[in-house]
Amino acid sequence: MVSKKIPARAATMEDVAKKAGVAISSVSRALSDHPDVSEALKKKVTDAAKKLGFEPNLLASSLRSGSTRTVGFLVRDISSPLFSLIAKGADDVLRAHGYLLLLTNSDGDTEVETSHLNLLARRRADGIIASLVAETEVETLQALQQFKGHVVVLDRDLVDVTASFVQIDHRSGVRDAVRHMLQLGHRRIALVTGPVTVRAGRERLKGVEDAFKEVGLKFPMELLRSGSYDSDFAEEAVIDLFSSDLKPTAILAGGVQSSEGVLKGIRSLGLTIGREVAFIACDEVSFLELSSPPISVVSRDPYSFGRVSAQVLLDAIEGHGPQIRVLSTHYIARATSTPPI
Amino acid sequence: MVSKKIPARAATMEDVAKKAGVAISSVSRALSDHPDVSEALKKKVTDAAKKLGFEPNLLASSLRSGSTRTVGFLVRDISSPLFSLIAKGADDVLRAHGYLLLLTNSDGDTEVETSHLNLLARRRADGIIASLVAETEVETLQALQQFKGHVVVLDRDLVDVTASFVQIDHRSGVRDAVRHMLQLGHRRIALVTGPVTVRAGRERLKGVEDAFKEVGLKFPMELLRSGSYDSDFAEEAVIDLFSSDLKPTAILAGGVQSSEGVLKGIRSLGLTIGREVAFIACDEVSFLELSSPPISVVSRDPYSFGRVSAQVLLDAIEGHGPQIRVLSTHYIARATSTPPI
Repeated sequence: MVSKKIPARAATMEDVAKKAGVAISSVSRALSDHPDVSEALKKKVTDAAKKLGFEPNLLASSLRSGSTRTVGFLVRDISSPLFSLIAKGADDVLRAHGYLLLLTNSDGDTEVETSHLNLLARRRADGIIASLVAETEVETLQALQQFKGHVVVLDRDLVDVTASFVQIDHRSGVRDAVRHMLQLGHRRIALVTGPVTVRAGRERLKGVEDAFKEVGLKFPMELLRSGSYDSDFAEEAVIDLFSSDLKPTAILAGGVQSSEGVLKGIRSLGLTIGREVAFIACDEVSFLELSSPPISVVSRDPYSFGRVSAQVLLDAIEGHGPQIRVLSTHYIARATSTPPI
Repeated sequence: MVSKKIPARAATMEDVAKKAGVAISSVSRALSDHPDVSEALKKKVTDAAKKLGFEPNLLASSLRSGSTRTVGFLVRDISSPLFSLIAKGADDVLRAHGYLLLLTNSDGDTEVETSHLNLLARRRADGIIASLVAETEVETLQALQQFKGHVVVLDRDLVDVTASFVQIDHRSGVRDAVRHMLQLGHRRIALVTGPVTVRAGRERLKGVEDAFKEVGLKFPMELLRSGSYDSDFAEEAVIDLFSSDLKPTAILAGGVQSSEGVLKGIRSLGLTIGREVAFIACDEVSFLELSSPPISVVSRDPYSFGRVSAQVLLDAIEGHGPQIRVLSTHYIARATSTPPI
């Protein structure tokens, strides 16, 4: 058992300041991991606090300062590789500035999401980084607007909401991918993705349409299967597409779980990607490149997405006005970008 | 712009209780998402609070109650698929009980980890779910022991620490996998994994040794490459193994990033898994099954791991004593469990 020293009377912040030979305000800042405090001072104070068995209560100091040094992170599902990389990027920046992430998962339920927003407000989070389920859910938008801290919205187009926005330029990466498919001779190119009522799906569709337009064609809307990012939805969409008259020769999957579902669907039909059907995933995960054949992808950098979002939030906390940042995507052709057979 | 109503004077909890026709204590519990409050009461209270523009300050009520309804989640890197699934499982259980997860990443740095433990103590987290970097880091163990809330340790063997433990039985899953390799005729079976000074690596090695012992053989320790879960470490280990006299005919990779590194190494040598070399990964990720050929795995259920850990923590918060739970692993033979050529 690690031994515990119990002091005769509870030490106070004054005792720590005295022992460390610093001002009380320095003790307070050092113990709340304030970023402006030097490592040397921090060590001096924590050593003194440790010797005296002093345990500051950050709740009390939060009540005084009005800052809890917490940032709410609202996502659909942290176990998605996309969101967990965003979380890591955001945490790396926030940690260096003395903030902790409060994580919430909505499971795609807007009511849960709204109640999380209200809960984070009541817990006095300094800011929120939010990947919202929808763009037009009135209750969610109200909760967001009523939140008194700073808000960074990830990859959503919201009307009449004062917040910073960090957007992904899905459109240009998808356009490049589909342009390549068209050059290879494909015409029946399917898009399987989430709802087009939300920015990512909508922008991907625009990218597909752009590429068709460039060669004087119109994207056949029968080849759009949008509505959900679930793997099951994508799997069924593929099976349905291949039972239709307009069988695709190439498929673009918009989203990590969409890609999984499309791959399952293709496999269940006994087809091989890069041979009977060209295939491009959206969003890089490590096994795409490691699979045989290596899978083409429209890639973005979720880790940087998280870092930039956190930086934009810190800017807002420091008094800067709302910002809009747009991050790029790019198409990486691998062994599944093949011509039609 | 979503309109905001500003009341003439700030509403109080008493006003809300009066308007909702309930006791003040009910208002307090309803607004802090206390799990024992019915949905009907919660709605009544939040509606009244909304109409009056009342915003409770949970900081103040936390100071009164001593409970912040937060749980610290300490991991090396949330962007690992393993940890993000654990986080999702834990959050699903904790959310239903009105707790939020405070996320921290140590990047494998024990000093960062220790400072996070101290920070969570100062922020009065009610509990901590911790996947520690090491098992014998004195400062970390002291910080853990001094933490006044409840602690659930994930998959570590700690001496003289009072906490609950949720362990993974890596040994039996690995033993089954290696038994199968031996039955297929392999004798030069390599294990590439993290440090054997930490439970997961140590138990995997025991599993390998068990299987060799069953057939009256001894595992050749030259085929153990342990030390780090980094992809780069595993990649270099594979290249080194194939340049040695004792070239492996089968490789077991202990960990998600280890598996990635091993696959990269095998590919860079121009070898094909399931043909020139048998391959088994530890820890399931979706693309293992979807890759060609589908990759064999020693699987565990990280989502359940998270759920069980949260449940054990809630039990402790409710006054139960420390528990030890052990969760199983199982071997799934797929197309890369092939005999030596």
